[in-house]
Amino acid sequence: MKHTISVQVENKFGVLARISGLFSARGYNIDSLAVGETEDPDISRITIVVHGDESVLEQVTKQLNKLPDVIKVKDFLKSNIVKRDLILIKVFADKKVRAEIVEIAAIFRAKIVDVAKESITIEVTGNEDKVVAFIDLVKPYKIKEIVRTGIIAIERGEK
Amino acid sequence: MKHTISVQVENKFGVLARISGLFSARGYNIDSLAVGETEDPDISRITIVVHGDESVLEQVTKQLNKLPDVIKVKDFLKSNIVKRDLILIKVFADKKVRAEIVEIAAIFRAKIVDVAKESITIEVTGNEDKVVAFIDLVKPYKIKEIVRTGIIAIERGEK
Repeated sequence: MKHTISVQVENKFGVLARISGLFSARGYNIDSLAVGETEDPDISRITIVVHGDESVLEQVTKQLNKLPDVIKVKDFLKSNIVKRDLILIKVFADKKVRAEIVEIAAIFRAKIVDVAKESITIEVTGNEDKVVAFIDLVKPYKIKEIVRTGIIAIERGEK
Repeated sequence: MKHTISVQVENKFGVLARISGLFSARGYNIDSLAVGETEDPDISRITIVVHGDESVLEQVTKQLNKLPDVIKVKDFLKSNIVKRDLILIKVFADKKVRAEIVEIAAIFRAKIVDVAKESITIEVTGNEDKVVAFIDLVKPYKIKEIVRTGIIAIERGEK
C-alpha cells in the first residue's frame, strides 16, 4: 500500500540525509520525495511517498519521531487530503502537430511554458492519475524529457 | 550564488541518502530537493537547489559523478531553463474575505483546490518570484499551512 508521509523538520543540514538514510537502511525505497520551506523559514516540510510492509513502516515512523531535528511526522493514510504533483514535460513537436498538443494541454488545464522549433514544453499539475493520463496522451508524439516534483499533500479544511 | 543541479540516477534504494549525505558532509545545506520518476521508470531525476562556495560545489559535483548509481549531473547555471515550484497554501478565510482571496488567486492563475468553513486552499505554480509574491499577498489573511515541492527545472528547446 502506498503511504504519503509528511515530516516537519528543522531546517538544519544533515536532516535530509538522516531521514532518507533511515528509509534505505530498512530496505524501503522512496517513490518520491519533495522538500520545501514552510510558512516558517526555519522549518521545512518533507513529503515522502513510499510503499511496502506496514509493520516496517510503523517502525520507521517511530524512529523518525526520535530524530533530534524532526518536529512532527504524519502518515496521511486516513486523512482527507489534496495531493498534487507537478511535471514539466518536453515533447517532440514540429509545426504539423503543435496545435494537437496545445489542444490536449488545454483539456488538462495545463500550461505551455516553452515552444521551440522541434519541441514544446508543458507544465501539468494534478493528482497522480491526472498526470499519468496526460503523459499517456502525449506519448505517441515522443517524449524528450520529463522532470517531476513528486507528490505533496495537504489536509482539507474542516467542513 | 544559487545553483540548480539536476542529477539523473538509477531508481535504486540508498541513492537519495548517498546524494544528500554528500552535500551535508561538505557542510552544504540544501535549499530544496525534489525527486520524481522520469520518462523511464528505472530512472529518477533529482533537482537540487543549493547555495554556497563555488569551489566546494565543483568538488561535490565531481563526487556525485563518481557515485555508482548516478548517470548524469548537470549544473543549470549557464543554461536557458524554465523553473517551476508548486505550493499548496491553506489560508484562514471566512465568508467575508473568501471572495478577495479568490480574486488574488485568479490574478495569479492559481487554482482553488478546497474551500472549508474557515479556510481556503490554493494551488500555485510558477517560478520562485511568482510563488513568493503570492505568499506575500495572502499573508495578511493569515496562513494556516504551506506545503511546497521545491524547484524543478527543464532546459528550453533549441530555437
